[in-house]
Amino acid sequence: MEVVIDRDAFLKGLQMVQNIVEPRQTLPILANVLLESDSDAVRVTATDLEVGARVAIPAKVASKGAITVSARKLAEIVKELPTAPVALKVTDNASVSLRCAGATYKLVGLSPDDFPPVVPASPASWVSLDTKTLREMLGQTSFAISHDETRYALNGILLVLQEKDVQMVATDGHRLATSKRSLGRGVGGMTGIVPRKAIIEIMRVLGAGEDVQIAITENQFVLQMPSFVMTARLIEGQFPNYEAVIPKGHPGRLVVSRSAFAAALRRVAVMAEDRNKPVRLALTPTALRLTASSQDLGEAEEVLEVEYHGGELVIGFNSRYLLDAISAVEREQIVLELKDSLSPGVIKSVEEEGYCCVIMPMRI
Amino acid sequence: MEVVIDRDAFLKGLQMVQNIVEPRQTLPILANVLLESDSDAVRVTATDLEVGARVAIPAKVASKGAITVSARKLAEIVKELPTAPVALKVTDNASVSLRCAGATYKLVGLSPDDFPPVVPASPASWVSLDTKTLREMLGQTSFAISHDETRYALNGILLVLQEKDVQMVATDGHRLATSKRSLGRGVGGMTGIVPRKAIIEIMRVLGAGEDVQIAITENQFVLQMPSFVMTARLIEGQFPNYEAVIPKGHPGRLVVSRSAFAAALRRVAVMAEDRNKPVRLALTPTALRLTASSQDLGEAEEVLEVEYHGGELVIGFNSRYLLDAISAVEREQIVLELKDSLSPGVIKSVEEEGYCCVIMPMRI
Repeated sequence: MEVVIDRDAFLKGLQMVQNIVEPRQTLPILANVLLESDSDAVRVTATDLEVGARVAIPAKVASKGAITVSARKLAEIVKELPTAPVALKVTDNASVSLRCAGATYKLVGLSPDDFPPVVPASPASWVSLDTKTLREMLGQTSFAISHDETRYALNGILLVLQEKDVQMVATDGHRLATSKRSLGRGVGGMTGIVPRKAIIEIMRVLGAGEDVQIAITENQFVLQMPSFVMTARLIEGQFPNYEAVIPKGHPGRLVVSRSAFAAALRRVAVMAEDRNKPVRLALTPTALRLTASSQDLGEAEEVLEVEYHGGELVIGFNSRYLLDAISAVEREQIVLELKDSLSPGVIKSVEEEGYCCVIMPMRI
Repeated sequence: MEVVIDRDAFLKGLQMVQNIVEPRQTLPILANVLLESDSDAVRVTATDLEVGARVAIPAKVASKGAITVSARKLAEIVKELPTAPVALKVTDNASVSLRCAGATYKLVGLSPDDFPPVVPASPASWVSLDTKTLREMLGQTSFAISHDETRYALNGILLVLQEKDVQMVATDGHRLATSKRSLGRGVGGMTGIVPRKAIIEIMRVLGAGEDVQIAITENQFVLQMPSFVMTARLIEGQFPNYEAVIPKGHPGRLVVSRSAFAAALRRVAVMAEDRNKPVRLALTPTALRLTASSQDLGEAEEVLEVEYHGGELVIGFNSRYLLDAISAVEREQIVLELKDSLSPGVIKSVEEEGYCCVIMPMRI
């Protein structure tokens, strides 16, 4: 392999795949990226055996070939290089020389033959989404993904492609967030749980404006952009029946400004010393009174003018869960639906369809 | 105490003193700041018994008084408040109410009588420095302060006020950095080791343009700015004889562009896997060849055109030490004085007087 790549494109490409590489690997070659040249590009591939990503970087290719080298080291080097052409030359299966401006490197590698294949999936059908929609849907659900490793099926987002709709659902058992969009055209009928790591990496690499194609196969999630593909093994396991979790017909309905509610929550929660930052909401037809207290430190209170239809009510929530749920709304007015102090609250947007977050109350 | 303070000024003031408070305190009141009102200001004081700081914030004072409250909690609250007047009212010795816009807090405090006094030192004479000079001198020395807790006397900057000169010196045993300025007027004759924590806080709070006054008393360092004072107990112990450490008359003299040298060092050091990031410098009259290697990863090389007077020479350095020393120079051309591969190197600026950094070589 003998190629010349633009340094900035090389760095951008490496940054798109390098987080896939886990810092501590049992298999040494998984700490590496695979570099392969075809006629006019260098493909860079990374995998942790569950999630894989590949990016194609335009290059002047003098001769084809492949090598694997330390992902971290290569990214460190390219980051320090000046904006100038980078010449890569693989002399044998085990090392590559890199030249850029006055700097020369020789990197010890491992044979490309031992690199685990990142299977380029060929699903039966693709669903095309614009970047903005995908980013919004991920933002409206990813915060609720469970971090509890023992609840394996909750460590990702349930992706449902059904009829004309794309729906995402995430829950950690204390809250459940879902986002649904109708695409106005058939999307097939596949379902799968996409692992958190893939979700995080998608949110990181999503560019502006480009269209994205996604697909679910029997055991894989695949995302494609021009010059980029990511695959993730679906999480096996039973996702909860999310439709049963979402309450319908709560009688109480609070309409409040998103920014005012969020600011008041943050101010009041400062005095909630518990790890869960509990805040008490007391509702009357025209006012929402937020309070929090801690035995050692004192108490906080703030009253907001609101529009509330329903019976007077006092209910406690983890304030971080409320803030996460509110932050996922784009528009300025949000709705909080309530029944009583023991039933979950439901946060929606006044204007946007398709998003809701169910939050279990706290006894306080 | 009953006062009204502007929220932004309150936040700025708190941020100037809050880092003095150590997160883990044996004495509970040391987690607090002391708030005291006089006729037109609230003074906020923090101390860890070694370093203390006090800031005066303009206020409308309805009644005088004092209280101590959690430094962390107060800063968290004020940070979340909107830009609006903040009303503080101490009802008894043990709590304070805070109101701002729609938010109300009650903070449990501790009696101001138990707060350790931060003695406002009254030194025999002050030395006036402009902020820029002080910042530069601290930047040219602070990186060399030792982190080795067992070498107590090296855990700060030696400050020497002598005749018309201000000099600072720091060393960790592997390198020594010093910065000296003549003020053109007498500065008295005092010497003391100022602890690292005070140095870091001074660098953090130094504003733009203001003049600063410093002084050394028998056991204290004091820094004064308008509305702000910091005191630090001097470190007791014997600072090394720094004049004996600085080599004089090294025969080899390299002149090189600071930015080119720094960039090449960073690029080559990527391949130095050792914790000390050793880089080898090979010098000929017109070229500086930098190399580094690691058995597992490979090697790096870069050649710079330089001006070198002296015998051909190969010498190894910790590249981070070289980078620290180079970064402390403002101008574009630096000088590296060398003797042989076992003698320390001396980094200076071509144009600036008063700065030098001595670095021990590494055998590589």
